Amino acid sequence: MFTETAAEAWRLRYGTDVPEGLEVPDRFLTHRSVRDYAGREIPESVVTGLIACAQSAATSSNLQLWSVVSVQEPSRRAEIARLCADQKQVYNAALYLCFLVDHYRLRNAAAAVGESCEGLDYKEYYTMAVVDAALAAERLFCAAESIGIGGCYIGALRNDPVGVAELLALPEGVFGVFGLALGYPAEDCTAKIKPRLSQDKVWFREKYDRDVNVGDYNERMAEFNESEGRNASVTWSMRSGRRVDEHHLTGRGGQKEFLESRGIDKR
Amino acid sequence: MFTETAAEAWRLRYGTDVPEGLEVPDRFLTHRSVRDYAGREIPESVVTGLIACAQSAATSSNLQLWSVVSVQEPSRRAEIARLCADQKQVYNAALYLCFLVDHYRLRNAAAAVGESCEGLDYKEYYTMAVVDAALAAERLFCAAESIGIGGCYIGALRNDPVGVAELLALPEGVFGVFGLALGYPAEDCTAKIKPRLSQDKVWFREKYDRDVNVGDYNERMAEFNESEGRNASVTWSMRSGRRVDEHHLTGRGGQKEFLESRGIDKR
Repeated sequence: MFTETAAEAWRLRYGTDVPEGLEVPDRFLTHRSVRDYAGREIPESVVTGLIACAQSAATSSNLQLWSVVSVQEPSRRAEIARLCADQKQVYNAALYLCFLVDHYRLRNAAAAVGESCEGLDYKEYYTMAVVDAALAAERLFCAAESIGIGGCYIGALRNDPVGVAELLALPEGVFGVFGLALGYPAEDCTAKIKPRLSQDKVWFREKYDRDVNVGDYNERMAEFNESEGRNASVTWSMRSGRRVDEHHLTGRGGQKEFLESRGIDKR
Repeated sequence: MFTETAAEAWRLRYGTDVPEGLEVPDRFLTHRSVRDYAGREIPESVVTGLIACAQSAATSSNLQLWSVVSVQEPSRRAEIARLCADQKQVYNAALYLCFLVDHYRLRNAAAAVGESCEGLDYKEYYTMAVVDAALAAERLFCAAESIGIGGCYIGALRNDPVGVAELLALPEGVFGVFGLALGYPAEDCTAKIKPRLSQDKVWFREKYDRDVNVGDYNERMAEFNESEGRNASVTWSMRSGRRVDEHHLTGRGGQKEFLESRGIDKR
């Protein structure tokens, strides 16, 4: 369905020809967020394989501080979609996975052998669990893409952490950190490879470059937005600046308080 | 070099035969942490391709709240290894990447067009940036493994955030969240696929299972540790419980204060 070569994907990402002699592993470059799905199930045998891929990702000190809940039952899917800003891809996904920061399982296991896990109170173990969850999800996602499945992360799982915790019956020490909607792309899915900042704005040698700027990125994104029928006069810098002002926290302004109330990231 | 089939990898992860009819995307299952490298460089043309893979990962609202610094110059590599608990794989890696939570680039770009980015003060944008950085790193890592490169994440990049910020010249709003050591595996590298918790302890349907336990995992890890010549009488539950007590924070107990001092995760 998505058939760009690595060289074509490079041009779409960076707006330049692929440098001569460049070796790019195929397939990993052509990611795009897929929100339109064919009405085709992902077989259970595939899902089980994908979960095994997620668990094959690295996990810090083998602590495995993450879990995942799949929400498939129609009325519950509707409810989780409502909690995730009513995004259509949550309703329509063949598989909807809620990735969790999970301190609960380890605390229980350690308590059973007389260990206290007091360190889990610290921010370090929030950071570690978020990293663990994201590594697992992205390995699963890469594996899914390699067999023709597409998808889209759902940050809106963080919009209403109390509602999500209720629906998923999350205990103390567990936080729904992001969702992942997956499905076979619809025949008429037009999801595009999106431009990114040039490499030299993101990858630094030896030291960070404090003079970093966005180079030609606003122009390249304007071109992309125009081709997608969107207003090109609001630049990436403007749109992104507004995106992270205080008025667009969409419920996520209380994340600190929520986590502390669940015994996570307390100090 | 690592030649397990998916079925073999499954057995090593879970201690059971692969379920009949299971479809597992090859290659994503066979990850292991590689710490012994052949003394062979990763060509610049490959590194550039891998960075493009990292940038091809999803990034929340296309904000791209991450960056990466490669540390290759020998005396600087020695210094970053020292900051990362003197781990030999940091010294010896063909490529050492420091992944960064990065609010600085966006704040600057937005300020240049009169936007304030006040929302970036909130925890939400720490969470988002950690997720962004980890998704980018894991896509890069999967791509690297697909062309015969191995590696190992380095959580110890968080041991001394002040030292890391100084060495890498990190500005306000930037935090070194984890390292990634990469290289072609040494001929005699014996890195093994490590057992993980059974799927039913990590993947829940519809609701979290508060009765979750670790099942046979302590026994399976004891067997693995014994085969690796390690003390099998300290179980995974015991070892992991001790790992997250207050005495093993190795400098990471001050992460909250460090981040706040850099204008990240303030409220």
